[in-house]
Amino acid sequence: MGRTLTYPKKSLNTVKRYAHRATYDVKAIHSIINDSRVLHVSFSPGPEDLFPTTIPMIGQMGSFEYPSADLGEPLDCYIHGYVSARLANLARSSEQGLPVCISASKVDGLVLSLTPFNHSYNYRSAVLHGYAQLVTDDEEKLWALKLITDSVVPTRWDNSRTPPDKGEIAATSILKVKIVAGSGKIRDGGASDEKKDYGNEEVVTRVWTGVVPVYEVLGDPIPNPDNKVEAVPEYIKSYVDEYGKQSQQYALGAVGAKLPEEEQH
Amino acid sequence: MGRTLTYPKKSLNTVKRYAHRATYDVKAIHSIINDSRVLHVSFSPGPEDLFPTTIPMIGQMGSFEYPSADLGEPLDCYIHGYVSARLANLARSSEQGLPVCISASKVDGLVLSLTPFNHSYNYRSAVLHGYAQLVTDDEEKLWALKLITDSVVPTRWDNSRTPPDKGEIAATSILKVKIVAGSGKIRDGGASDEKKDYGNEEVVTRVWTGVVPVYEVLGDPIPNPDNKVEAVPEYIKSYVDEYGKQSQQYALGAVGAKLPEEEQH
Repeated sequence: MGRTLTYPKKSLNTVKRYAHRATYDVKAIHSIINDSRVLHVSFSPGPEDLFPTTIPMIGQMGSFEYPSADLGEPLDCYIHGYVSARLANLARSSEQGLPVCISASKVDGLVLSLTPFNHSYNYRSAVLHGYAQLVTDDEEKLWALKLITDSVVPTRWDNSRTPPDKGEIAATSILKVKIVAGSGKIRDGGASDEKKDYGNEEVVTRVWTGVVPVYEVLGDPIPNPDNKVEAVPEYIKSYVDEYGKQSQQYALGAVGAKLPEEEQH
Repeated sequence: MGRTLTYPKKSLNTVKRYAHRATYDVKAIHSIINDSRVLHVSFSPGPEDLFPTTIPMIGQMGSFEYPSADLGEPLDCYIHGYVSARLANLARSSEQGLPVCISASKVDGLVLSLTPFNHSYNYRSAVLHGYAQLVTDDEEKLWALKLITDSVVPTRWDNSRTPPDKGEIAATSILKVKIVAGSGKIRDGGASDEKKDYGNEEVVTRVWTGVVPVYEVLGDPIPNPDNKVEAVPEYIKSYVDEYGKQSQQYALGAVGAKLPEEEQH
């Protein structure tokens, strides 16, 4: 497309501090959401409730109308999880849908500076605001279920017993969130300190500074006691390997470091 | 103490679905919060705002009055992160504090069943509701800063340039959340399916079922270009090793599996 879409800055999503870490780039924000295994979905149960409520859910950005849409285009957020009767009623109660805040974050490194004041994380976080509605069209529901299932393990949908039967589809709730604002924050790099500390010989010779990479890996698949497929299928094996490698690569890349194997080439 | 404290069940925190996965055990809930590198803190900016806002922050449960309190006792949640002027004003605006919802979650495994409908995660999640106030007492602030810094890397406080100077203390905001309700959810075990599927020969001989463990590890520490401490200190090295091992152990333990090394003993 040759252009980069950004979410408009509104008071709702304007990141005020560390503006150099803020991103309004649609693709970056959507990628953070899609790479997160859990989304935290917040909503206000009602005007008489003081507290917002947050529910951990699973979700993906996508477009049912334009399934081939790129991550850098305007997309809806499809989320799945426990939709209580209360939540379902709230989502139904207005034509626009229920106002929700979706957030996701991932820590990529522990940034250890000379002083606790300058300690930080390398991280990626995204926050979306939008209106949630229950998906009622069966075709759209199926499409969203495949999108979400394949985000757990790519191609898992085709490699499991599909399609779901009518009862399963009816018993599954999917929320579609029309996004009205989004923002993200990305911190990378090493530790930074002030002159009063890095100019202090006693401090710099005593305090180790640097970054401890943090990343998520997948372990060897553990078959169910009643599993009848002898070997772990290739699509699972290669996902396990690739996921760990990419995850480590990102954490190291955030500090400008590389995987040991890469350095040998 | 010989007793197990539980959070009272209120409409605010009653987990309605999968009640067998729900926990109101104070120690379990506090452990999930303390083991999470990021807490998602939600609040409603004001009565005219439709959307709650969520900010990723870092925090720990603790008691300033009784610092030796066990994780199973009533504790406050001390959180640190970007406290905007708006958030600070909201926290100051009422005597009780700002109503917030704090949530944390950790995925321990991808649970792959015969049908997408029964796919799940092994996970731990916790949700707390409480009133947030800014910590104004310098001694309490210092105490909380140490608590939070040592949650990044144990003993890091004593191993960095401390105490912070007056300017640093003044520039750091800590919120103390008095908890009024809490709940948690823990899912472990393998995949489970219905008879219509595990009795179907075509399905069971084609679809692999089981759990892919998910866990977070720490990589080899990467020194800052200007770091002057030659060797990575022992307290960092041992934390890196221990963290990965415990993390893996939990993910495997959730499926009733053990670390390879353990099996040899």
